[in-house]
Amino acid sequence: MPLDEALIESIDDRTARLMAASDHAPLLYHMMKYHLGWLDEQLRPAHFHPGKRIRPRLCFLTCGATGAPPERAAAPATAVELVHNFSLVHDDIQDRSHTRRHRRTVWDIWGEAQAINAGDGLLVLAQLALTEDAATDPARKLRALQMINNACLLLCEGQCLDLDFERRPSVTRDEYYAMIERKTGALLETCCSLGALYGEADEPTVAAYARFGKYLGLAFQAQDDYLGIWGDPKETGKPAADDVVSKKKALPLVRLLEVAEGRDRERLGDIVARPGPASNEETAEILGIMDRYQTVEFIASEVERNTRIALEALDSAHPAPEWHEELASLCRRLTIRRS
Amino acid sequence: MPLDEALIESIDDRTARLMAASDHAPLLYHMMKYHLGWLDEQLRPAHFHPGKRIRPRLCFLTCGATGAPPERAAAPATAVELVHNFSLVHDDIQDRSHTRRHRRTVWDIWGEAQAINAGDGLLVLAQLALTEDAATDPARKLRALQMINNACLLLCEGQCLDLDFERRPSVTRDEYYAMIERKTGALLETCCSLGALYGEADEPTVAAYARFGKYLGLAFQAQDDYLGIWGDPKETGKPAADDVVSKKKALPLVRLLEVAEGRDRERLGDIVARPGPASNEETAEILGIMDRYQTVEFIASEVERNTRIALEALDSAHPAPEWHEELASLCRRLTIRRS
Repeated sequence: MPLDEALIESIDDRTARLMAASDHAPLLYHMMKYHLGWLDEQLRPAHFHPGKRIRPRLCFLTCGATGAPPERAAAPATAVELVHNFSLVHDDIQDRSHTRRHRRTVWDIWGEAQAINAGDGLLVLAQLALTEDAATDPARKLRALQMINNACLLLCEGQCLDLDFERRPSVTRDEYYAMIERKTGALLETCCSLGALYGEADEPTVAAYARFGKYLGLAFQAQDDYLGIWGDPKETGKPAADDVVSKKKALPLVRLLEVAEGRDRERLGDIVARPGPASNEETAEILGIMDRYQTVEFIASEVERNTRIALEALDSAHPAPEWHEELASLCRRLTIRRS
Repeated sequence: MPLDEALIESIDDRTARLMAASDHAPLLYHMMKYHLGWLDEQLRPAHFHPGKRIRPRLCFLTCGATGAPPERAAAPATAVELVHNFSLVHDDIQDRSHTRRHRRTVWDIWGEAQAINAGDGLLVLAQLALTEDAATDPARKLRALQMINNACLLLCEGQCLDLDFERRPSVTRDEYYAMIERKTGALLETCCSLGALYGEADEPTVAAYARFGKYLGLAFQAQDDYLGIWGDPKETGKPAADDVVSKKKALPLVRLLEVAEGRDRERLGDIVARPGPASNEETAEILGIMDRYQTVEFIASEVERNTRIALEALDSAHPAPEWHEELASLCRRLTIRRS
């Protein structure tokens, strides 16, 4: 059963209500609304693409899968999307990204100092999305706040590790997975456990959905790392082999730094150690080494392995049949996506 | 009755326990611990001065004043100090401050990108300080989370307004007060209402302590604005007339821009409009205009007015006598302080 899109859109109304409670410092809310796609650069009302909204979608679907009406998860669905957007606004400052979703980033328009405030404000609104929810009892809300803040702390850890990896000559596969479990896995895991919690599932069921979300996140990230190199520039919006040029310590390069031998290993080490982006020749050389070590096949097997664990966890949660298929197909769409 | 200093120190243990729950991304916690004064730049254990800890102090004292044991407010006292430190770490990035409490700032050592993570992490830990508290019932914890997050949102608004004022030619006194109520007043208000809440005070009493905290904050800030110009450099650690040189839109200048007339008004407007810091001649000229309009007396009357409202609110809360004197004297110390 497909999710009612009006439900996804209802999180915008909830977010707008939280913002409307305050009448000062309009700039703070302008930045947030611009980032969310509700305003253009001239602060005129707009409807830009808000992203795939995977996180609230997972939250609603999981809630439905427990047998409860999916709308019961409206508050946590709003909160997880706000947490995601907080992290995007701060990531864009940290990564010096000038565009996101084909528009200028918040810091690119208003400067870093104000963009830090916009991100901070979104993180606080995420908390208020959970506390200001008359439909849910205090004990459940409190559990939700514990879950989401544990995920937020892991998100900060993941982002800290990711930035730290950039300045290191090499990163082990274990270190990479520890980073990605935090940066991507933790919030997707929490989307699903929150959905199950608000559906009033028992503890083993909440844990099974959490596992589903976590491994879905890991599969999603591995696929994202694939697209960062071999994705179609027309669909990803990024140049071809972008992550090779920037020598990003994503799964393909991390694994290659572990398995490459002899002269391949030496060349890779030299290219990665040299500061700045890879030249055209170096990019071709790295792509050649990746070919020799079956990197595409390795990534595909990682996507497949994590997807399988996710789908097994989903089965073990015994989801209501009409939502089971929807969750499984969302999982498959995300892990074979082309952009 | 003086507050047991061991109680103030107990918030460090609580904070350390929250950090210890996670075993990855040591850099994230190193930055936080450095900022809190627990580590030096080489990451060796240290005990640097942690600041005046006004916020947890107010929280404990208010709880005691309701008749409850002050230690009952340990969780919110920890949370408000973490919120304060989150805002300092981000403020230092935003203001490009290289030193704080005579030590290098987090961003000055680890760069802006990582310092953003450190601040984010402290804000998340503040939430967890409230949720991970077995001694308090869910409904009260939830109310505390609402209060603190409303204060955090106002803090973001205040910081947004403050940064925005820097690039504006003038700011009205109403705008200034709206900013300072958010940037300074909201959190001090919340320290006191949280203390009263955890002391299980009734609603009118919680509101009276909130009012005490808010006006204490406004008096504190007016005194801070006084010290920013006329404070003794040996005690404030800042150059003489620092806020005049930087043309900071603090209360003295904001009020002067409203009341100065004729040639004084014109000169002020010209000097403030010119980018960059004031020259020695300009600084002397502004100080002269401030003298002619009794600016010191005006600030003193503002400090006095807000202190009086704070102390009246304190009386109306009917605090336990042994803590009443302690709260009143903290209020007086803060509003006639010399550094």
